[in-house]
This record gives sequence, C-alpha cells and structure tokens, in this order.
Amino acid sequence: MSVAALLGAIAPVGVDGKRGGYSRHGFDRADLDLRAWFTEEAGRRGLSVETDRNGALWAWWGSPGDGAVVTGSHLDSVPGGGAYDGPLGVAAALVAVDLLRDRGFTPGRPLAITVFPEEEGGRFGLACLGSRLMTGSVDPATALRLTDPDGATLADALAYAGLDPARVGRDGAALRRIGVFVELHVEQGRGLVDLGAPVGVAHSILAHGRWRLRFTGEGNHAGATLLADRRDPMLPAAGVVLAARRAAAAVAGSRATVGRIVPVPGGTNVIASSVDLWLDARAADDARTRAVVAEISAAAAELAEAEGCAVSVTEESYGDTVVFDPALRDELSGVLGGVPDLPTGAGHDAGVLAAHVPTAMLFVRNPTGVSHAPSEHATDADCEAGAAALADVLAHLAR
Amino acid sequence: MSVAALLGAIAPVGVDGKRGGYSRHGFDRADLDLRAWFTEEAGRRGLSVETDRNGALWAWWGSPGDGAVVTGSHLDSVPGGGAYDGPLGVAAALVAVDLLRDRGFTPGRPLAITVFPEEEGGRFGLACLGSRLMTGSVDPATALRLTDPDGATLADALAYAGLDPARVGRDGAALRRIGVFVELHVEQGRGLVDLGAPVGVAHSILAHGRWRLRFTGEGNHAGATLLADRRDPMLPAAGVVLAARRAAAAVAGSRATVGRIVPVPGGTNVIASSVDLWLDARAADDARTRAVVAEISAAAAELAEAEGCAVSVTEESYGDTVVFDPALRDELSGVLGGVPDLPTGAGHDAGVLAAHVPTAMLFVRNPTGVSHAPSEHATDADCEAGAAALADVLAHLAR
Repeated sequence: MSVAALLGAIAPVGVDGKRGGYSRHGFDRADLDLRAWFTEEAGRRGLSVETDRNGALWAWWGSPGDGAVVTGSHLDSVPGGGAYDGPLGVAAALVAVDLLRDRGFTPGRPLAITVFPEEEGGRFGLACLGSRLMTGSVDPATALRLTDPDGATLADALAYAGLDPARVGRDGAALRRIGVFVELHVEQGRGLVDLGAPVGVAHSILAHGRWRLRFTGEGNHAGATLLADRRDPMLPAAGVVLAARRAAAAVAGSRATVGRIVPVPGGTNVIASSVDLWLDARAADDARTRAVVAEISAAAAELAEAEGCAVSVTEESYGDTVVFDPALRDELSGVLGGVPDLPTGAGHDAGVLAAHVPTAMLFVRNPTGVSHAPSEHATDADCEAGAAALADVLAHLAR
Repeated sequence: MSVAALLGAIAPVGVDGKRGGYSRHGFDRADLDLRAWFTEEAGRRGLSVETDRNGALWAWWGSPGDGAVVTGSHLDSVPGGGAYDGPLGVAAALVAVDLLRDRGFTPGRPLAITVFPEEEGGRFGLACLGSRLMTGSVDPATALRLTDPDGATLADALAYAGLDPARVGRDGAALRRIGVFVELHVEQGRGLVDLGAPVGVAHSILAHGRWRLRFTGEGNHAGATLLADRRDPMLPAAGVVLAARRAAAAVAGSRATVGRIVPVPGGTNVIASSVDLWLDARAADDARTRAVVAEISAAAAELAEAEGCAVSVTEESYGDTVVFDPALRDELSGVLGGVPDLPTGAGHDAGVLAAHVPTAMLFVRNPTGVSHAPSEHATDADCEAGAAALADVLAHLAR
C-alpha cells in the first residue's frame, strides 16, 4: 500500500468546511477516528497496539521492550491545516514496515510506530502536549486544567477518549523503551526545493514559544461614545501586531506572528471591553527569542497605556533551541547517500524528545514550502521516497 | 408593577456566561423566551397580541386600527450587552399602560406597544432588521439569505420561530397603523447626566453604517515561513484599526470602530490566510461619514498592497442622518415641562421609521454613559420617571 493510498483513506476525516483543509484536534471526533484508523492499519500489519498513560499510541513489531527503534509522528492538525503535517510521518512509517517486510528484514531490536496526541496544540493551546507530558516538561495538574474553546478540560477530553486523567504525567518506562527516535515530516519551508533533494535530515529547531497578551479597556457603544471617552483595547492590540513584525525584522532569522485574536464581546457596534491575542515568536537561540518578545511586550505596555488600557503578558509555552544529535544526524545522512541537513522553524515532538533520547528527523520536500494551510503539499513520488528512506534508516538502526 | 420588577423578571434570560451581560439575538432561544414573556405581560394587561409579517409583536389597547399611537422598542441585545438597551423601552411601555389605567385614562385613538426583532443585528449583522423589512429599506430576498455565525439563514430562524419567510418584506398595512411612533430608550452617552435631567427627547441620529473588510493573503506556518516570504493579512488588518481611529479623529464628531475581527483559520502557530474585520462608522451627515470611510478604505488598499495582500470592502448597511420631526419633538418636550433635546450616535428602529411616520424618542439618563456593555445602567428612579414621562406623552398623543 502506498503512502498516497493511506493518506487518501483518511482524506474525508476532519475536513473543515468553514476554514478549508483539516481541523483535527487532540481527542476530538476526527482525531479519535484517525486513531482508530491507525490501530486498524497497524493490526493489518500484525503490529500490536497499546496506548500509554499520556494517550500516545504504540504499534509494536515484535515484543515491546526497552531501547527500541521508534518512529512516528502525530495525526492532529492546526485549525484548517494541511493533509501532510503529521499524517505523512505516520503513513510513511506504516509503508516503511511494509517495505522492510518485502525485503525480508527482521528487526534485531524492538521496533515501534508511535502517534503522539495534540502535537499542534490546536485544541488546548500547548504544542507537543503528548511528548511534553511523557518527558515531564509540563506539570500534569496544570495540563489537565487546560481548556479548549468550548470550555472542556484536557481531563474531560482524556476521559471521553477512555483514558484515565489521574495517570497522566512523566512516563519514565515509556522513555526507556525509546532507544532512538526518528520522526519523518513534510518540510515546512523551501529548503529541499532549493537543494533539489526529495529527502533531508534535520539539523536544528529554532527556540520558540507562545504568549497570550490580554488587553483590557472599557466596553461601550460604538456610535454613542466620543473618541475622547474611549479606552478601546483593539487599538493597542492592533499596534502590537505591527510591533511584532518590526521586532522580528530587527533580529536576523527570527519570526513573530499573530494568527489568533479574540475581541470580547466581538460585536460590530460594540467597543471591545478586552482583546486577547496570541504571539508566536521564534529565533535562533534563547537570547534572541527573549529579546524579540521583550521588545513586543514593551511596545504592548506603551500602546496600552496610551489608550488608557491595561495589558498582561502570559507565557503559555516555551522551548529552547534544539540541535539534533550530530552523530546520529550524520550517520543517517550517510545511510541515505549523503542527503543534506537543514534547520527548521517548526516545533515537533522529536524536538521535545531530543533532550531525553537520541533523536533525528527526516524531511520530505514541499514544493511551495507552505504548511499549516490547505495548500500544504508533497508529491506522491516524494512521499514514497520518504517512506523508502525511512525504511533504510530503520533497517540500519534496528539491524 | 415597576419597570425594575419587569426587568428583574427577565434578568435570568440570555445571560452570557462567557462575555458577561446578555446575548439575546433575533429569534434565538433567549429572544423567543423574551417574546413569550412580553406576550404574557401584555395579556395580563388585557392587550391583544399579534405578530406581523416581519416578526414584530404588536400589543393592542382596544381595537387595532390605522393611525394608532405606537410605542415600543426591542428585546434583543448586542453580544454581551446590557440589561436596558431595548428592554427598558418595552418595560416602560407596559408600565405606562398601567399608569394610564390607574389615572382612568381611555385612549381616543388605537394604542399599541411594539417589539421589533433583531434591532442590534447581533445575529444576522444588519441592525434594525425588523423596521428595515417593514419599511422596505432592505430587500427581503437579500435579508432572508443573511446568515448567523453558525450558518443558519434568517429564513431558517423565522421558520424556527413559526413565521413564514415568504411573507417577509415591506408591510404598508403595518405602517399605516402607525399614526405616531415614540420609542423610549436608555441614553447611550452622558448628555442627560451633564444636564442634570432624568429624561430628554431625541434631536437626531448620526449617519452611520457597517462595512466588512476582507483581507486575503497566504496561510502558512508561523515558525517555518521567513518574514520576507509572508503575505500576512493580519498586518494590513491591524493597520486599518489604527487608520480608522485616525480618520475619525480628523472629522469632528465622527466615530469609527473595529469591534469584531476574525482571522482564518485563527491558529496561534498559523499565519492567517484571510482576516475579516467589521468597521462601524458614523458622522453628523452623509458627506462626512462617506469621507471617513473613503479614507479608511484607501488606507486598507495601501496597507494590503504593501504586504502582498488583497482587500475587499463591502457595505453591509447604511443609514443617513435622521433628524426627528421638530414639531413633534418640541410638542413632547413641552408636555414634559420643557425637558432637553439631545442628539445621539446610536441607531434605533425609531430612526428607520422616522422616514415614513412621525417619530420621536425619549431618553432616560445613564449615569456613566456606558452602553452595549454589562455595566450599562439606569437607576430604578430614573426608569420610573421615564415610564411616567412616556405615560404623559401617550396620554397627550392619544387624547
């Protein structure tokens, strides 16, 4: 079965009729359907599937055991996301197992495919939630209280999915099972296009985080309130969108984005009483990321004060720069005939795991570089090349 | 029964637990409950209630007939609105009937209390929907296709409320029944506070309208996309929020507000592919309102182009300046012992009807001037003074 056929089978799941693309979020209906699909595909290959304490799926080739060769990715999406970010890594892993079987390969170490939950943070706002819980980099009590836009907590969502919220948290036994982790992912930039290569290995991930800025003013009537009497939080919020771009432009290689903004109450003829906006900021290292965010926070305070508003800035998540294990990276590049390595601005479960176990990533070429959008794409041929490369890497690591 | 007691009875209906205040929108559950409450209160007073083709309620004292004295307001709210905008005029009308009965008054002309639906446009985006339909100032086919945020059309909502969408549109018979229309409303500014008066009469309403600006760019990954590669529609949208304030500040007495903005898809780690924002603009006359909107539209085009984005500007509603019938205004001020008259920036059904029938408004003092927000307020004593003033006015007009 090809990668394209596997992705085709899940193409109807979680289609977002409003935004376009897919909205598949941790433990929602679409995500549960995708998890059931994965369990069935793994079963069809004779892999035994288990769910760990934090909701990650593990499909084992042979007996589960410590020090395994583990590959996998995630099945959830951003709101209105593409078909490849996440599912490509899972589908390629299933095809890689088929390829290894066709070659008559038998792993010399335990081998597993994992699916991590809520990698995008599209439902509970915290990216890489599953791997953060597994590695203990987020406090489980805090995580369980996270709410989705409808007010459901992570604890509610886990219970709905048949998982026990009380068992969530650092899972040393699961980590010990990972001898080496390799995640295959669609590239989220044009690095491989420019290099003319279908597959590459990851060099590093930018430092990155999310901050919520809450501007508070005074709700009032849009027609009856004189300009001089207004304390309209939309004004400093808008100013911060522009300040974020300026701050990022001043620090080479950094990025700052506002993709989500929610005025309350949100009526056309109502001056908002408060505005929440979320800042996504990334840079080459911790110091540069912090500098960009400090600059934006200072602008927010100044802009809020000028309009008689208040502002609070809350860090919702943060991860320092990840440099993938250089020896492993070079080893895998060699196995694949010297494919290029390249950095990325995107976060991944592999980035979270990298602080705990030897970790690597393979990237598959993306013709336009667009990701987190319905037009995200990889050609069928490149997807198959990715699966073949993953099979080569797994065969090497599990030899 | 006091105005405060009537408002107290509906205090639990349509409470918005998320935004605070009330969210009661045309023909939604809360609105239907309020309509049932009004029908019951009218029945308790021996008034016969009928629903017209456009969903307005009419409660008749005596036999329905042409040339009636009509008072009333609306029961819907903006999202997260206050308790007085709309319901005060309805409750005061019910109390005015009680007061007239207590005085042994019998109307010499037909007298009715009306409740107009969807005055705020909080569900379908078009303010004064009921009075616009009745007067033919909106095309019924266009109106029936308007959708709420969940995708339901006005036609769906009317059918759900037991009304026939096919009968919606200009209602000459209903208009002929209105000999004179008087709407009592909480003031949405501090005019009466500054004048030390509990009640006043309306002089005029600013010209005003709503425009939707849609900025279209390219959705992409917030971490992996270089600044130079971005076409992020949030940037020109933010710029327009600031341009709107500048444009309004340049034209004395005008107002421009952005209270609603919706990025698509709206993910934290996603560069938006498009952003919709709604502009509410008002000024003393047509020329000044158009000048403000033209200035903002020009800024939108320039800002969009600078970011490689496109923008479209759609007028969703527009109403020219309303000057209430001067003779009627002075007559009512005289009946009330020479209360002040004052202009307002807020639109009302009375403003729509003013082009068709003699129309007046009474305002009740608002201690802070805040409206369209949970803190909107009028004291119990001022509410009773308003009802008494309305009774005096109705007795004079229906003598």
